[in-house]
Amino acid sequence: MQQTFRLVIDCPDQVGLVAAVSQFLADQEATIVEASHHTDQQTNRFFMRHEIKAESLNVSIESVKQAFKPIAEKFQMNWKIADSNKKQKVVMLASHESHCLMDILHRWHSGELLCDIPCIIANHPQLKQFADWHGIPFHWVDFKNKSKEEAFAEVEHLIQTYQADLTVLARFMQIIPGHLCEKLAGKAINIHHSFLPSFAGAKPYLQAYNRGVKLIGATCHYVTSDLDEGPIIEQEVMRISHSDTSEDMVRKGKNCEKIALANGVRYHLEDRVIIHKNKTVVFA
Amino acid sequence: MQQTFRLVIDCPDQVGLVAAVSQFLADQEATIVEASHHTDQQTNRFFMRHEIKAESLNVSIESVKQAFKPIAEKFQMNWKIADSNKKQKVVMLASHESHCLMDILHRWHSGELLCDIPCIIANHPQLKQFADWHGIPFHWVDFKNKSKEEAFAEVEHLIQTYQADLTVLARFMQIIPGHLCEKLAGKAINIHHSFLPSFAGAKPYLQAYNRGVKLIGATCHYVTSDLDEGPIIEQEVMRISHSDTSEDMVRKGKNCEKIALANGVRYHLEDRVIIHKNKTVVFA
Amino acid sequence: MQQTFRLVIDCPDQVGLVAAVSQFLADQEATIVEASHHTDQQTNRFFMRHEIKAESLNVSIESVKQAFKPIAEKFQMNWKIADSNKKQKVVMLASHESHCLMDILHRWHSGELLCDIPCIIANHPQLKQFADWHGIPFHWVDFKNKSKEEAFAEVEHLIQTYQADLTVLARFMQIIPGHLCEKLAGKAINIHHSFLPSFAGAKPYLQAYNRGVKLIGATCHYVTSDLDEGPIIEQEVMRISHSDTSEDMVRKGKNCEKIALANGVRYHLEDRVIIHKNKTVVFA
Amino acid sequence: MQQTFRLVIDCPDQVGLVAAVSQFLADQEATIVEASHHTDQQTNRFFMRHEIKAESLNVSIESVKQAFKPIAEKFQMNWKIADSNKKQKVVMLASHESHCLMDILHRWHSGELLCDIPCIIANHPQLKQFADWHGIPFHWVDFKNKSKEEAFAEVEHLIQTYQADLTVLARFMQIIPGHLCEKLAGKAINIHHSFLPSFAGAKPYLQAYNRGVKLIGATCHYVTSDLDEGPIIEQEVMRISHSDTSEDMVRKGKNCEKIALANGVRYHLEDRVIIHKNKTVVFA
Repeated sequence: MQQTFRLVIDCPDQVGLVAAVSQFLADQEATIVEASHHTDQQTNRFFMRHEIKAESLNVSIESVKQAFKPIAEKFQMNWKIADSNKKQKVVMLASHESHCLMDILHRWHSGELLCDIPCIIANHPQLKQFADWHGIPFHWVDFKNKSKEEAFAEVEHLIQTYQADLTVLARFMQIIPGHLCEKLAGKAINIHHSFLPSFAGAKPYLQAYNRGVKLIGATCHYVTSDLDEGPIIEQEVMRISHSDTSEDMVRKGKNCEKIALANGVRYHLEDRVIIHKNKTVVFA
Repeated sequence: MQQTFRLVIDCPDQVGLVAAVSQFLADQEATIVEASHHTDQQTNRFFMRHEIKAESLNVSIESVKQAFKPIAEKFQMNWKIADSNKKQKVVMLASHESHCLMDILHRWHSGELLCDIPCIIANHPQLKQFADWHGIPFHWVDFKNKSKEEAFAEVEHLIQTYQADLTVLARFMQIIPGHLCEKLAGKAINIHHSFLPSFAGAKPYLQAYNRGVKLIGATCHYVTSDLDEGPIIEQEVMRISHSDTSEDMVRKGKNCEKIALANGVRYHLEDRVIIHKNKTVVFA
Repeated sequence: MQQTFRLVIDCPDQVGLVAAVSQFLADQEATIVEASHHTDQQTNRFFMRHEIKAESLNVSIESVKQAFKPIAEKFQMNWKIADSNKKQKVVMLASHESHCLMDILHRWHSGELLCDIPCIIANHPQLKQFADWHGIPFHWVDFKNKSKEEAFAEVEHLIQTYQADLTVLARFMQIIPGHLCEKLAGKAINIHHSFLPSFAGAKPYLQAYNRGVKLIGATCHYVTSDLDEGPIIEQEVMRISHSDTSEDMVRKGKNCEKIALANGVRYHLEDRVIIHKNKTVVFA
Repeated sequence: MQQTFRLVIDCPDQVGLVAAVSQFLADQEATIVEASHHTDQQTNRFFMRHEIKAESLNVSIESVKQAFKPIAEKFQMNWKIADSNKKQKVVMLASHESHCLMDILHRWHSGELLCDIPCIIANHPQLKQFADWHGIPFHWVDFKNKSKEEAFAEVEHLIQTYQADLTVLARFMQIIPGHLCEKLAGKAINIHHSFLPSFAGAKPYLQAYNRGVKLIGATCHYVTSDLDEGPIIEQEVMRISHSDTSEDMVRKGKNCEKIALANGVRYHLEDRVIIHKNKTVVFA
């Protein structure tokens, strides 16, 4: 993979904005690999992502950041310039279901997901074998023999210690407390095994079975303190019929879960997602 | 299309049941075109549909029905034998949106949907032109200048007069009163423009837009007095993104609505749907 | 619908290009509704589409075109500025299958497809009734009693007389001669009832049935003299099984055909498609 | 999982056939979990699969087989009765791409795929680490330093030694010689990374990229000596656009490959597939 810089911006829409950014990039001799724009017509907010060949720039990324500041201030931008070579640290939270964890680990191992995975935290010990094989530290936090407060204090401490840029809940079956949700805002991704907002809460496949829907799905979203209500990044569905038991639905749904989570995490790692209120702009 | 008879059964599951039915059909020299079985493991209820070449039978359909009665009684069956040549009468209810009505009318006109359409009832006058071209009586029931009671009494009277076997709500924007829902139980099909149970109620596309989902859909279901809670026959979805306005979603969703409704109606007309509690078995 | 102008460009990629175009638009005080960019990394060609609020410009579209010329020349652009209020003339070619024609006509009638349809040309007379109802002139070209040369000369004459901007082959079952393909290059769209390049040529559903595929589809593409080899705009698929006869596949496939054709035509009418060699860039 | 027996039949269609089989099952007091029928109207061949609760039978499976023989002979059946508790031996063939192998191994490890995996054979050594972790013997057959004949003799010997019931080519990049295809007829499954019959042969993603298709896919099929022409079991597709490079297509396509292969293998292991000429009946 060639090294790129990603300039990601959101700000109030305004005439001259794109010209200013484009002229800035041209002045840096930046070769643009990919450019995406979006204006939200309701809120008049503007979103923009540029991916730039690193080698095309004639100065350091720090100089570029310095040079961009006046433009960013003029247009009241939220902005960042991310370096594709600087891998994000992704801490995985898991429980005893292995399919999502293994899927992410394999995509990481095979080079599809570019990130570091400094540790795996789980509330059950079974998945340690997967961590061991991949050479990743595994931390079992014993939710049964600790209070929720203690257990989550340990989880939070681990996330901090490993300096997580992103926390991924790969079918982690514990509800994150509100204060931790707030600390991880925009930096924690969950996979919910239903086509949200249908069947929020527990046992979505059983709910789906009882309601008799003809399609089931999975939803990848940012964690917020409103359970299952965070900004949606990606969704997948598949067709079912009366002949599928709720066990069949679990099996089929796992394919949706794995793909929705893998895509959501990749979009985040490639700086393709901008959160805007309770929705996302995803420059997929 | 060759003429067929459709033997549709549901009853408590029991050893010997299939053998009894199969032997009965063999005794009639029936050539089976299609056979479908399903056992609901939770409730231990059995569902079965046979489609039989009419010409293979050596006696009349009435004799077959008579001969089958003892078996039906022995196994406590709900059952029917339907004749593919006896077209069902389908009364259409519409409002001012034309896409679902036109889609059904064209599939009927071109011979894809085998039924009679004796009349179209609408609470707005605009769609009369479509009815006229197809030579179908059009009844405008003026919901604005009548009370709900009067208006629905008129609708009910028309449904009775035209001896509807099935009533199809092709984006009919009025809530059917409870007593009429009960009269039409299992004989009225609605299309809801969301992926139920998400976004039940009014303005589903706006709800979907506000929630920021990445897929939208449509749901074809039987009408019950619990609004948007009836047994689901068919669902369709399609992918959207942040760049779709709620108007785009309306436009895209119409494709889902048309296909889900057309399939749902066809399954019903071909006696492929069995309602079981609040779910359906669809031998598609 | 608000009036917009669409600036569509393709040219060799080059640093400064986006800045020049963006600055030009900013100088015109243009409010950008939608902007899309793409660089083909293999050929180093750049593609760009801007949709601009017409009312935001302080001068006429002709002045804008004049002012843009020097930029276009400097960067060796293929370019156009299209006015959303200037409806394109779409001539429909059909045969005796009505589903694609009716689908396009209904989308046009209901305002989903913004264009004029000055005439329908068919090699069978049956579809005249649809044309009549919509008040569109219908021309039956009798391919049976004329030579191919004569018949196509008549078709070509009609296309010219009605000043077609776009010709749509809505399941027109005649092979367009090479010289006419060349005249209509980039301005004629066909729907092929298979998932090309699978099952090119005649009877694709029968081919698909014989091959035992588990998904069937439809392909919307530009007409070229290499039959079924033109640039693809849009494709749709749906799942089938062993229980579908080739007749079932025809019925199911029609839904794919209608949606793929309607999307392809809409993308073209909204100036979202740029042809590049034998492929398309579709800013959907 | 409860133990079941699967009675799978194909034979010429005939009146009385279903009655005879159903009566036989009733006489055994067999509780039917799932029953599926299909008649191919073109060839008049009949296909049938019953899944029966093992505990409901009052005699051994061998006695049942003996008792069924006269019926089988009378109706000229191809037939088998498979025991869900008797796990099939699945030998995996792989190369250096790990995604399909890992996916199958994980589904096996987690109990989703019920089978034994006695060994993995590969023409590259890299994937040994995956085999080791799962405790499965790994055989590297060095295709570079051996002749094709020698190498495939070794592969064949290993397949025999491990008594493979099924051989799965999980992106095995060598063409199986004709005589081995014949030996493995109906017992070897391949995953092709295109939506066959499109892009048969080498480098399908590059072919797809060059053709500019808007959907890509994968095909799971039985191996035959006609390369990429064997009976199709399952296909998957996903949408792409001009902005996907051929590398993106590879990444996206892997999801299709994994799901199509996993489903195809599962259907085979559950005795849901019947090969009929060059097509399959899949009672999914």
